[in-house]
Amino acid sequence: MKKTKDRIDRKAAKTQYILSIDLGGTNIECALVDRKGNVRIKKTCPTETWKGGKAVLSNIVSIANAVMREAKSKKHRVAAVSIGTPGAVDQKTGRVIGGAENIPGWKGIPLVPALKKEFCLPTFASNDVTLYALGEAMFGAGRGAKEIVCLTLGTGIGGGIITGGKIYRGAIDGAGEVGHMTVKLDGKRDNCGSFGCLERYASATAIAEMGREACKKDKKSLLLKLAGGNADEISAKTVFDAAKKGDETAKNVVEKAGWFLGAGIANLINLLNPEMVIIGGGVAKAGTILLRIIRKAIKTYGLKVNTKDVKIVLGELKSNAGVVGAAALAWQEIDGKERGSSLAL
Amino acid sequence: MKKTKDRIDRKAAKTQYILSIDLGGTNIECALVDRKGNVRIKKTCPTETWKGGKAVLSNIVSIANAVMREAKSKKHRVAAVSIGTPGAVDQKTGRVIGGAENIPGWKGIPLVPALKKEFCLPTFASNDVTLYALGEAMFGAGRGAKEIVCLTLGTGIGGGIITGGKIYRGAIDGAGEVGHMTVKLDGKRDNCGSFGCLERYASATAIAEMGREACKKDKKSLLLKLAGGNADEISAKTVFDAAKKGDETAKNVVEKAGWFLGAGIANLINLLNPEMVIIGGGVAKAGTILLRIIRKAIKTYGLKVNTKDVKIVLGELKSNAGVVGAAALAWQEIDGKERGSSLAL
Repeated sequence: MKKTKDRIDRKAAKTQYILSIDLGGTNIECALVDRKGNVRIKKTCPTETWKGGKAVLSNIVSIANAVMREAKSKKHRVAAVSIGTPGAVDQKTGRVIGGAENIPGWKGIPLVPALKKEFCLPTFASNDVTLYALGEAMFGAGRGAKEIVCLTLGTGIGGGIITGGKIYRGAIDGAGEVGHMTVKLDGKRDNCGSFGCLERYASATAIAEMGREACKKDKKSLLLKLAGGNADEISAKTVFDAAKKGDETAKNVVEKAGWFLGAGIANLINLLNPEMVIIGGGVAKAGTILLRIIRKAIKTYGLKVNTKDVKIVLGELKSNAGVVGAAALAWQEIDGKERGSSLAL
Repeated sequence: MKKTKDRIDRKAAKTQYILSIDLGGTNIECALVDRKGNVRIKKTCPTETWKGGKAVLSNIVSIANAVMREAKSKKHRVAAVSIGTPGAVDQKTGRVIGGAENIPGWKGIPLVPALKKEFCLPTFASNDVTLYALGEAMFGAGRGAKEIVCLTLGTGIGGGIITGGKIYRGAIDGAGEVGHMTVKLDGKRDNCGSFGCLERYASATAIAEMGREACKKDKKSLLLKLAGGNADEISAKTVFDAAKKGDETAKNVVEKAGWFLGAGIANLINLLNPEMVIIGGGVAKAGTILLRIIRKAIKTYGLKVNTKDVKIVLGELKSNAGVVGAAALAWQEIDGKERGSSLAL
């Protein structure tokens, strides 16, 4: 029986690791992650997106091999390979099927088959933000919760939905595009071609842009001072730093962004009725100042029956979030397999 | 083994029925529904919401008993009881837990325990729109699809999410509140207390309101004529009838409502990546005129990776949608039980 061949011994798995990869726009991270989400042997290399999809895949294989060699030398046992990537991964073929426009030629790459061939191990792949959500659910702020919505606030706004403790994938692994929810039908045009997307009002990019814009009207703002007098240097961090120091102009920008974000999260709560909303990514570092406004907006735009018990929290996974998220998927699939459910790949 | 006791023989079940109930604001419908979604013996009685929750429950029990008596006289075998209700039902206790404000005292009613006690049969309950979605998925426009979002356009806008062929419930059975998605943060105030809710722009109520408003500016509109010269008599149907006859004022109203609706649906597609969006309820009767605008808006606001293969269709279940939906849940739970999964109640 195939079952016998593929079976991963539960006892042995306790001391095993996932060879876990996080593909970012700038760097590739690769590490071993144990069943509790602890990270051992972590290596990083540049992604070199400009070289195109095949070169990126080759970089992934190289760094993964480097970690694998060290694992072998330390007698660590590796149970599976798992990778988080921008875009969506077809769960039947293991190919990248879109939404990863910042890596030319990445769409169509047979990601899972290639890694499976290289390492001869069970191999898993999914969208990076989705995996971040699963990582928070299993090893981070969401431990114990089964119904979770996760947002990452960075250059854009990403999202991941967890239901029954598992990833909500949708038809083609494309679910969770929170950043492209329109909250203003006649709003600003987004890169995606749509109008009034949430990420145009509440991502790091949008917050920095609003900060720069606000400086034009208020030349005395602390914002400009913190940016060394050069408005072009204002980042989301500058805005939050100035707001924390009481600068009114910066506070207004944070209020506006937080209000949009809160309204968007209220939409998610009305639609998905999660137990918990987890906010991660760079902008989340702003912490309580942002959470306060978000909670106020949720009260305004959310339905009481769904909002009254929902927890709004910041993500707990920090610099290792990517590799921990990828490992979460692998451990979950391995556990599911042990219980008799099917493995996609 | 408990399994033996609870087991429903697959062969016998083929000739069995669900005692299926749909609780509406005006009427209660009760019928027998077979495994293919066919309806036998259907009875209707007034809900009498003004008498309060306990009286409504007593009306439900009466009509269900009437159907049960006829079923017995005809030697029909009943496998389970299932009911769709406004609001949400706690899946652990079987109590109504909110969102059913139009029936005073309905919140808190031990719906499942009461019906279980009355009929001594496995009993299931959920939100009526959620069950409509499951009914369409199993017996209607969604046959064969596993990832579905369903909208009902009536007095308000309801929604149901199906994933992996099953109901997406969220934390407390409260998922699917599509009508309360804000698409305009500074928009019209809704009854729910929020602003710019989708149902303020695209429900039957909103369309009728926009029609009446438009007549104030265009006294010569066909709208007014069709309403017998009395603007107060304009309904959503009047607006669609006038639009179909080419009336520009009415067409503008339909365009506006359809555009909002399409943007809202695009948000759902971006978030949930369904294979299919099913539009049901009274407003859906407008048919192609509305679908055309919705599809245009989806193209504008939706992400290509998620919209390119999605089907936007009208619901197929007509007057029996409520009881068929409730039966769908019972059949699915019975089948799940036969395959060994757990039953909530």
